[in-house]
Amino acid sequence: MTILYIASGACSLAAHSLVHELGLPIQIESVALRTPDSPIHAINPLGRVPALQLDDGSVLTENSALLPYLADLRPEAGLFAPAGSVERARIQSWIGYLTSEVHVGGFRALNRPERYSADEGAHPGIRAQAGEQLHQALAHIEHHLNERKWLVGERYTIADAYLGVFAGWLPRLGERFADLARIACIGAAFRARPAVRKALATEGLL
Amino acid sequence: MTILYIASGACSLAAHSLVHELGLPIQIESVALRTPDSPIHAINPLGRVPALQLDDGSVLTENSALLPYLADLRPEAGLFAPAGSVERARIQSWIGYLTSEVHVGGFRALNRPERYSADEGAHPGIRAQAGEQLHQALAHIEHHLNERKWLVGERYTIADAYLGVFAGWLPRLGERFADLARIACIGAAFRARPAVRKALATEGLL
Repeated sequence: MTILYIASGACSLAAHSLVHELGLPIQIESVALRTPDSPIHAINPLGRVPALQLDDGSVLTENSALLPYLADLRPEAGLFAPAGSVERARIQSWIGYLTSEVHVGGFRALNRPERYSADEGAHPGIRAQAGEQLHQALAHIEHHLNERKWLVGERYTIADAYLGVFAGWLPRLGERFADLARIACIGAAFRARPAVRKALATEGLL
Repeated sequence: MTILYIASGACSLAAHSLVHELGLPIQIESVALRTPDSPIHAINPLGRVPALQLDDGSVLTENSALLPYLADLRPEAGLFAPAGSVERARIQSWIGYLTSEVHVGGFRALNRPERYSADEGAHPGIRAQAGEQLHQALAHIEHHLNERKWLVGERYTIADAYLGVFAGWLPRLGERFADLARIACIGAAFRARPAVRKALATEGLL
């Protein structure tokens, strides 16, 4: 049995939604994060989700690998593109950008300044700068979207699913991110999808 | 004409080496980084390399997309793996990990603490913590390598090329990273490859 380990409200929502979107025979296991006794530590030594445990017991991690892997199991669904195509490279590029600039470069420093300095006095300055960096990283996406509905091409892809997760984290950051209307639209379209609603219900977020 | 924009000594060395490794008809253009008048700003609004300008003038960025894209142009070289395979997902996973945890989560905070706080007094603490985070991120790779010669399977892949670049950045950080002997081995094997030596020569680093 293949098992996808997720945590409620985490970035694992993108992979979780793909399991339903693609009708994959994958069991969903919800775990706690950042608690020493969470079962995730036995699965992924980094203690993070999403983590996909394959039938042979080995584990795949990193959204930038998991989302493509899941989409490639059902290429006919059209959520990704063929190997070697420029379109595939563009989708993979946005996923890479979201991981490094938005998630790690933005949200992580904003939410976990202790990872960036042991000096607590430095944390307000780190959070403030992280907010700036995050806004700048997202403004680049907002500018790209311009008149587009989706990140790449004329259809919903795994890059939009991933952006949809981060779009859902923005309202709690207050009004300063309210100028990013096109990203908010993709977030709304993501959350309206039946597969995403099913995943949100499982995560206790509906 | 397809053009790969690189900067001497930057992380673009992985993609640069692949152009020679795979014998791709791609022109190499070396640019300065972080200078307002660098031609890179007209190519990539983020001002970063690697950036691949395609024949139609459009541009692809992010190592996590470029390295797979280039490898997929010559699948027979065996530097990547077929779409849908677990092996491909593992290679993509290490590339994602190297981008987010090693490059952005480690080296960036170490080299550019101003991106993490506007308060200069906080920079020494940010650099110290970044060194810890970087060592921890690399120790996870070192542990994975154990008796392995390469990151995935029994052969050199694009994940090893990418790791090889970061391995080359470690000696300047001093003795604290000298315990990572398997990573150093991959770095040495990378730099010994004819394609990499050709790229290093172009970058003025031989």
